[in-house]
Amino acid sequence: MRINDIPARTIQPVADARAVDVIDQTALPHTYRTIRLSSLEDAAHAIRSMQVRGAPLIGVTAAYGLALALARKDDEATLSAAVATLAATRPTAVNLHWALARMQSRLARLPAGARAEAAWHEAAAIAEEDVDQCRRIGDHGLALLRPLAEKRGRLDLMTHCNAGWLATVDFGTALAPIYAAYDAAKLTGWDVHVWVSETRPRNQGLLTAWELKQHGVPHTLIADNAAGLLLARGEVDAVIVGADRIAANADVANKIGTYLKALAAREAGVPFYVAAPRSTIDFTCPDGNAIPIEERSGDELRVVPGVDTSGRPGSIRQFPADEAVANPAFDVTPARLVSAIITERGSCPATPAGLLNLYPEGRHA
Amino acid sequence: MRINDIPARTIQPVADARAVDVIDQTALPHTYRTIRLSSLEDAAHAIRSMQVRGAPLIGVTAAYGLALALARKDDEATLSAAVATLAATRPTAVNLHWALARMQSRLARLPAGARAEAAWHEAAAIAEEDVDQCRRIGDHGLALLRPLAEKRGRLDLMTHCNAGWLATVDFGTALAPIYAAYDAAKLTGWDVHVWVSETRPRNQGLLTAWELKQHGVPHTLIADNAAGLLLARGEVDAVIVGADRIAANADVANKIGTYLKALAAREAGVPFYVAAPRSTIDFTCPDGNAIPIEERSGDELRVVPGVDTSGRPGSIRQFPADEAVANPAFDVTPARLVSAIITERGSCPATPAGLLNLYPEGRHA
Repeated sequence: MRINDIPARTIQPVADARAVDVIDQTALPHTYRTIRLSSLEDAAHAIRSMQVRGAPLIGVTAAYGLALALARKDDEATLSAAVATLAATRPTAVNLHWALARMQSRLARLPAGARAEAAWHEAAAIAEEDVDQCRRIGDHGLALLRPLAEKRGRLDLMTHCNAGWLATVDFGTALAPIYAAYDAAKLTGWDVHVWVSETRPRNQGLLTAWELKQHGVPHTLIADNAAGLLLARGEVDAVIVGADRIAANADVANKIGTYLKALAAREAGVPFYVAAPRSTIDFTCPDGNAIPIEERSGDELRVVPGVDTSGRPGSIRQFPADEAVANPAFDVTPARLVSAIITERGSCPATPAGLLNLYPEGRHA
Repeated sequence: MRINDIPARTIQPVADARAVDVIDQTALPHTYRTIRLSSLEDAAHAIRSMQVRGAPLIGVTAAYGLALALARKDDEATLSAAVATLAATRPTAVNLHWALARMQSRLARLPAGARAEAAWHEAAAIAEEDVDQCRRIGDHGLALLRPLAEKRGRLDLMTHCNAGWLATVDFGTALAPIYAAYDAAKLTGWDVHVWVSETRPRNQGLLTAWELKQHGVPHTLIADNAAGLLLARGEVDAVIVGADRIAANADVANKIGTYLKALAAREAGVPFYVAAPRSTIDFTCPDGNAIPIEERSGDELRVVPGVDTSGRPGSIRQFPADEAVANPAFDVTPARLVSAIITERGSCPATPAGLLNLYPEGRHA
């Protein structure tokens, strides 16, 4: 995608160096800046602090993190310590574990000393595949949206959190079909508009608004609380979200608040789509109850970041530090509330058979 | 209720003057301060700016606003202009219109010149009745909560927005049964705990946390998005909210986001109670579709108030001012999702017959 008309990716190898540049997503939407990850520690910190976030991008960053560790020292102990460090950064998004397993599998056949180079190439391959998969998700998602758009001559879509190109290497998962619909609309004349929910407590909706704006896609920010009213009023044609983990039974873990939107969509008779690549599907996880839900610091609710009246970065404390806070970062949307899962191989019903039909290899997980 | 162990009401006539003191709710939870309303304009501004808020308190403040107008000039033109000004402050809470209608009806029989004194007394009577009604709502609500508490020896309740004593003259609507349960727990030994949702964009959950803390009631703040997960996990015994308007068919308008909690409660098999006095029930309004939904300024999402690192009041801008925002302040929960309506006359099913059984006079509305 583009930033100020310059093609951009969220993670980019640095020429002639073992390092990658990533967009510091904690500075958006106020400031666009990149930071350089040159070590395992840099990569682990970027994931933990959510400088990079979004299930697919977390996976790619972890793969590069492993490559950065081996670039420093290519031995068995370094490899296993790096895997352990990266695996512990965040618990819910399974793409992290998927990427680490794939890297280990690729490197297992190679002797120490020969793995640093291979790791670097494998991480780059994972990144390239992510771009390709997200582009395909866009195409398959557009096929679902097209009949909705043709019925009304317009498309009002709702998303939650950020599952756009900022959450992947490029294009996004939930936003890929939206970008595809917006591009198609230049020929068809559809009006495409996106309801963007704020996504407290980390406000990733502001990232979605920022990236939609770079691409020129009309959108409106809402409080998370407003989703039910808009759906009940018939102002939404479809809800599309990403996922952090899809269980074998098609239950979906995604950003906290997703489940509430799914309930409201079903009540309104509006399709609820989940867009995710293969790396998000965990065939070893029987159902949503088995998905670990990350509990994050209460300060995410207490302290709100932004800019002060003179435009300088700042933050304010919303309420006293001694107020008890619970801050689960994800929830589980039962498969029965999901109209379809959109993957790089096509769309399928949110059922075990639907997933296995697209991914027969899942039987052996 | 109490602030730092001193008995307090949200609106209090000033001795030897035609004025009332109210708590400035825009300064909470950081600063407790009162402001004096001495004129119609003061009262209208306090309602519009949400220095006073909460359907019952809005009604009482409007009644006093009318009395303040007549204290300046007791003639027909002043009365009708004051009614028009106050009626236009906020559209959704029907208590405002109820209070104005009651004041007009009381004053209609009196000649100009004799109405200023009567208006003052009638406003005070409305305030006193509000206190009494909220106390009774507490008792009737406790009767519903008691069996839930007895089953588990504890009560985990969830509320939304602030329908506590800050939203009324005293005791509250949704929080009155919670205070009653907490007080009962001193004898029964129940553990009572409240999940308090932040309630974006205006964060009235922070008011609820503040007043629960004054009373010592254990509570935990959550993002609005977390309500579905907590309900699905079985961590909530009942949801209790207030209302801004209950239609004749028992559809309920309340703070934006209420509907999402009601959907999640039904899905989890958890009772969803609405607590409100007579003045909130609009028998002239057939159903939720006929309730006007207030659209408020997008700056409520853009600008987040709080205190800076040195504890001084401040605010930050979350995102650029040119982002489009939709900010509906209320939503409608269909009667079918409401387990019971708790009023000062008792609890009833959320049906037209249930309401008319408690309020037979509603037939003639």
